[in-house]
Amino acid sequence: MPPTYQTSRRVEFADTDMAGIMHFARFFSFMEEAEHEMLRSRGLSVIMQHEGKKYGFPRVAAQCEFSKPLRFEEVVDIHVTLSRIGAKALTFSCEFKRGGEVLARGSITTCCCLVGPEGMKATPIPEFFRERLTSGS
Amino acid sequence: MPPTYQTSRRVEFADTDMAGIMHFARFFSFMEEAEHEMLRSRGLSVIMQHEGKKYGFPRVAAQCEFSKPLRFEEVVDIHVTLSRIGAKALTFSCEFKRGGEVLARGSITTCCCLVGPEGMKATPIPEFFRERLTSGS
Amino acid sequence: MPPTYQTSRRVEFADTDMAGIMHFARFFSFMEEAEHEMLRSRGLSVIMQHEGKKYGFPRVAAQCEFSKPLRFEEVVDIHVTLSRIGAKALTFSCEFKRGGEVLARGSITTCCCLVGPEGMKATPIPEFFRERLTSGS
Amino acid sequence: MPPTYQTSRRVEFADTDMAGIMHFARFFSFMEEAEHEMLRSRGLSVIMQHEGKKYGFPRVAAQCEFSKPLRFEEVVDIHVTLSRIGAKALTFSCEFKRGGEVLARGSITTCCCLVGPEGMKATPIPEFFRERLTSGS
Repeated sequence: MPPTYQTSRRVEFADTDMAGIMHFARFFSFMEEAEHEMLRSRGLSVIMQHEGKKYGFPRVAAQCEFSKPLRFEEVVDIHVTLSRIGAKALTFSCEFKRGGEVLARGSITTCCCLVGPEGMKATPIPEFFRERLTSGS
Repeated sequence: MPPTYQTSRRVEFADTDMAGIMHFARFFSFMEEAEHEMLRSRGLSVIMQHEGKKYGFPRVAAQCEFSKPLRFEEVVDIHVTLSRIGAKALTFSCEFKRGGEVLARGSITTCCCLVGPEGMKATPIPEFFRERLTSGS
Repeated sequence: MPPTYQTSRRVEFADTDMAGIMHFARFFSFMEEAEHEMLRSRGLSVIMQHEGKKYGFPRVAAQCEFSKPLRFEEVVDIHVTLSRIGAKALTFSCEFKRGGEVLARGSITTCCCLVGPEGMKATPIPEFFRERLTSGS
Repeated sequence: MPPTYQTSRRVEFADTDMAGIMHFARFFSFMEEAEHEMLRSRGLSVIMQHEGKKYGFPRVAAQCEFSKPLRFEEVVDIHVTLSRIGAKALTFSCEFKRGGEVLARGSITTCCCLVGPEGMKATPIPEFFRERLTSGS
């Protein structure tokens, strides 16, 4: 069973657009926030130091399909699943639900990187990270 | 030849995140802005009245792959192609380039809808819209 | 005693900028979200129907002073006070605190409007709204 | 005469909210973008290296008053004036106009800081910066 996590978000006024619904780009930020919350729940972060090294997880791909709109002040449940863990890449899949009805489905793929003065460089996911992220699942 | 359009955007401070690069969700807004600019260049809009009807184009899917980061004050070229036009749906593909180098590739699929007091309802793309969007290509 | 409300927010990755801190414009959205949460706690909303009329509260002024930065994943307490209620205008003052330390102070002034097909028109704050907002304070 | 600068912005779909107008927090980002454009026009930037030192200009205060709404696809002119330059602080005042009509007025005050590994520390505005910003005015 892949690790999962569940959270929820309320649609704020600034999340809406003139069509009266949540702007589609906000779904991507909601996915990212849910991913980060899942990491925090396991003592991890998308930017973290470990044994003198700094790790970051820039996004390499993101996609989402939207079936139903979300409106101001509605609360949406976000179900996150770590759907793939490779040598360097992680894919988090998200399902947006309101009262059991699926509103949107998407995913974000990130790549583990070492962060240095010259920027970011892809690196294998360190063992401590992999263990904390997948343990008990 | 499918219709194409080219524009550019400068990365603003608010577009960046603590990793020092443009936040990934902003690429989706840039794609949408480029799509809207392409529509405007043909006398169209994503929200428009025509013969007493109001049309909107909510997003049904969006995806992007990120190869290289964008930084503050950099200018990115955005090449838009109307890569698919169906009965009701439109797909705009975007390529983000800096000096000829591809930084990201993505697409947005929208669905033509009639906008009424009860919300939005999918409808075939009206002929005037299809003509203006594809003429001369 | 003017009505008060307290909530908190976590700084998300998309809230940060390349300076590594929460972007200043996000403080304004946080203030608005806290105001809306205060309204909800009293059965009110910034967009609401009442006796066949639709009310909205567009912002007429906003200001904030920033003393200390907020960083990714930090939780900030937001203390809201309805600091002024006039015939048509409401001012909500906000204090951002982390562990008792004030990070920023700001306010938002909104104006009660009737929302109609022609747009918004200033109107006196209706009695039901005033009562629910100020009762028990 | 204090230095001035003029630019313009088009209201994008993501700038709007469910009230059908530009969200108020976006005015603050537009002000910041206009300020940065003014700096660039004088060979300056809000984040810059000079003689081995790194300077940043975090915001210490911001305010805006909104008189008229802005709508999707409208173009707004932004007039920036460097209304105050102190030892360490700069205040940029902005006027938003559409066809000569003032829609909003605001200002942003920033503080010159040295950026180091421990964060940012207020410092007098260096002479080269002051000269380029105020020359010819």
